[in-house]
Amino acid sequence: MTAEIISVGTELLLGNILNTNAQYLSRELAALGITVQRESTIGDNHGRLAEFVNEAKARCDLLVFTGGLGPTADDLTKETVAACFGDTLELDEAEWAGIQEYFARSGRETTPNNRKQAMVPVHGKKIVNHHGTAPGAWFEQDGRCAVLMPGVPSEMKAMWTESIRPMLLERQNCTLHSITLRVLGGESNLEYKVRDLLENANPTAAIYCKTGECEIRITARAATDEDGEKMCRAYAKKFYDLLGDAVYDEDVAGLEETLVRTLKEKGLTIATAESCTGGLIAERITSVSGSSEVFGYGFVTYWEQAKAKLVGVEPEVIARYNVVSAPVAAQMALGAAEAAGADIAVSVTGLAGPTGGDELRPVGTVYVGAARGGTAYVKKLFVSRPDRAWVRGRAAQTALELALRLAQGKLPDGTKPLAAARQHDAAALDALDKAFLNK
Amino acid sequence: MTAEIISVGTELLLGNILNTNAQYLSRELAALGITVQRESTIGDNHGRLAEFVNEAKARCDLLVFTGGLGPTADDLTKETVAACFGDTLELDEAEWAGIQEYFARSGRETTPNNRKQAMVPVHGKKIVNHHGTAPGAWFEQDGRCAVLMPGVPSEMKAMWTESIRPMLLERQNCTLHSITLRVLGGESNLEYKVRDLLENANPTAAIYCKTGECEIRITARAATDEDGEKMCRAYAKKFYDLLGDAVYDEDVAGLEETLVRTLKEKGLTIATAESCTGGLIAERITSVSGSSEVFGYGFVTYWEQAKAKLVGVEPEVIARYNVVSAPVAAQMALGAAEAAGADIAVSVTGLAGPTGGDELRPVGTVYVGAARGGTAYVKKLFVSRPDRAWVRGRAAQTALELALRLAQGKLPDGTKPLAAARQHDAAALDALDKAFLNK
Repeated sequence: MTAEIISVGTELLLGNILNTNAQYLSRELAALGITVQRESTIGDNHGRLAEFVNEAKARCDLLVFTGGLGPTADDLTKETVAACFGDTLELDEAEWAGIQEYFARSGRETTPNNRKQAMVPVHGKKIVNHHGTAPGAWFEQDGRCAVLMPGVPSEMKAMWTESIRPMLLERQNCTLHSITLRVLGGESNLEYKVRDLLENANPTAAIYCKTGECEIRITARAATDEDGEKMCRAYAKKFYDLLGDAVYDEDVAGLEETLVRTLKEKGLTIATAESCTGGLIAERITSVSGSSEVFGYGFVTYWEQAKAKLVGVEPEVIARYNVVSAPVAAQMALGAAEAAGADIAVSVTGLAGPTGGDELRPVGTVYVGAARGGTAYVKKLFVSRPDRAWVRGRAAQTALELALRLAQGKLPDGTKPLAAARQHDAAALDALDKAFLNK
Repeated sequence: MTAEIISVGTELLLGNILNTNAQYLSRELAALGITVQRESTIGDNHGRLAEFVNEAKARCDLLVFTGGLGPTADDLTKETVAACFGDTLELDEAEWAGIQEYFARSGRETTPNNRKQAMVPVHGKKIVNHHGTAPGAWFEQDGRCAVLMPGVPSEMKAMWTESIRPMLLERQNCTLHSITLRVLGGESNLEYKVRDLLENANPTAAIYCKTGECEIRITARAATDEDGEKMCRAYAKKFYDLLGDAVYDEDVAGLEETLVRTLKEKGLTIATAESCTGGLIAERITSVSGSSEVFGYGFVTYWEQAKAKLVGVEPEVIARYNVVSAPVAAQMALGAAEAAGADIAVSVTGLAGPTGGDELRPVGTVYVGAARGGTAYVKKLFVSRPDRAWVRGRAAQTALELALRLAQGKLPDGTKPLAAARQHDAAALDALDKAFLNK
């Protein structure tokens, strides 16, 4: 089965809105085993839209439209596509009553224009919109189909999930099951490792990367959900075999979600002490609903005085080793755990740029610390892309990763330890500092 | 002049990448007075691409391509478009030497495939790529033009700005000048106010909205940059007349940039005390390069104990008024300013959801405080969309807005004051609390 995705709206052609619908639908159609051959954005112009629909209808089996279902004169997707598919529209009394009720609730009156939204296909089907006033539509002629959804992303996604995807699955007489693996690590290396597994008809596997981690989505089409799950599980095993514990979780929004859940499971709490990340780590942890069970205190210690006052970093240690150094990261983590009475603490001190730095510590040099049970573990990071947001993002990601490993009771890879009892001992600090210099 | 934007790449049709190039080019072409009639995404397939190019060439004056200029067999935009425009390609010795040198520098050897990238139009023009190995191309036939740029957004944008836009301006015999106004306020209300000003041929004006603020971009085409600047300035005045000091700055990345610059100019410092925003405000302030001049201390006081310990909120005040209350926001701001020795401090306490809350304080209820010169100013916010990230974003935006007003020496709108000297006085706290309840 082949498809095209068509976004309708002059505001898209003017660049006023970023088109995220097309990517969402591309992924969803790929998962259904439907090949997307073309994506197009067309303005709110009857003639150009009709010309396009007639061309596209000749090229593929399914046309997936978003946008142009509103009440204004500009919104003409439904009328135009109906005509191209030899269908007409009629007023749906139930839809019209619903729209009037919606307006009454918000103390407004409907205008004649609003009746447009209640018009539905005579031969095709209306698609109920549970999240807005504009119903969708389904047209069919000579084995070619067109589905029309609203342009507002939340309404479109809901209609897709609740109505359109089930309809397409029923037509294909199958169900869909997905597992999303979350994997730590950079893009190109990871993609290279798993490239052979990404070429598969069923289950399909696709990789999406962001700062310091990737998402691998495995989707199986099968007769029953049970079969689909088995197929996904078997295919996921191939990734686990290749990637080991770089796969840190399944079906979560990000590392912070896994960290918060793990801390809850183990009955642990966490605190943060941040310099160059400036609050980003705390922000990510608290973005998880229910994080207040495990997180109580965050310190943004941007100035040296703040590092001393809030988390007990010794000014002499800063003077001796530099504020961007392993000894400072270690003292920050140990001090934050103590000040917050937390089981685990993470710390970051580094140069996010874009200016500053020197030969020994160029922009992108970051020390990340994590403390648990009276020991700090420090890692040095060098982020070669001199982009402030990127450096901060990578530093925060590394801190969350160290925290997760400590919460799981593992020793974090690539770190050097410093016992709390030796954190004021010059020899121990010297050794820690030296372990990272020129590396 | 009419144009179409064409993105080439099967990875786009699979949804592996979000297409941000199309939006960027839409805005840029609109600013040049070029009407974009259609945007399309096509896979790496020679037959389908050639068919498309021939159709599109008949429809409009300018075809703007991104993607498909790489070295692999899949990358066939250049060959295909050349054929459709009656042109051929030849090896460019300078490009080929550059590519070989690039490979040698990174210790690799070129393969025969890499020669593909050094092929340039015989009749058309090559476009030098200063940020990557793939040169762009320009084809022309019967008054119709095609421009080919790389798909990597940073390379595409650089080539557009450095080469393509100047070429198009030269053809139109004009220059381009832009001013971007940053405006506080919600989307629909603001768009409605300025709607008449958005319909103008030259200068053009376009509005782009995000959480709690909008960007209005005014662009003039003129014979000289001086004329363009005058035209923009005169048109900007119309927006200032309509919007007053809701326009908080010009040509900045966001509110945090204006805040940091204003604090620097006035020689002031700022601190933060955050509960439901969890570090987001500190993160936004420190995202500005050079913010360490004005920001030293941030407190993420997620737990009640943290509010008491770090910024001196009285446990009895929490017990009496609730942790989400105006008295707590006031004490947090005053306490943070004192603990940090900062001139200004902002605070947030609220319910970000999605769960929790009660009738008196539903999810989305947030108190934002700001302190300066021994007085706290508190504002209540109710964010009706029960989305955690959205509530946090709106709360942070409001806090930055209050901080900017205080830094400018203005009293922030819609706030109630509490003098530091009366912050432990039951009558004053009672009055502050009552001022917001049931509102």
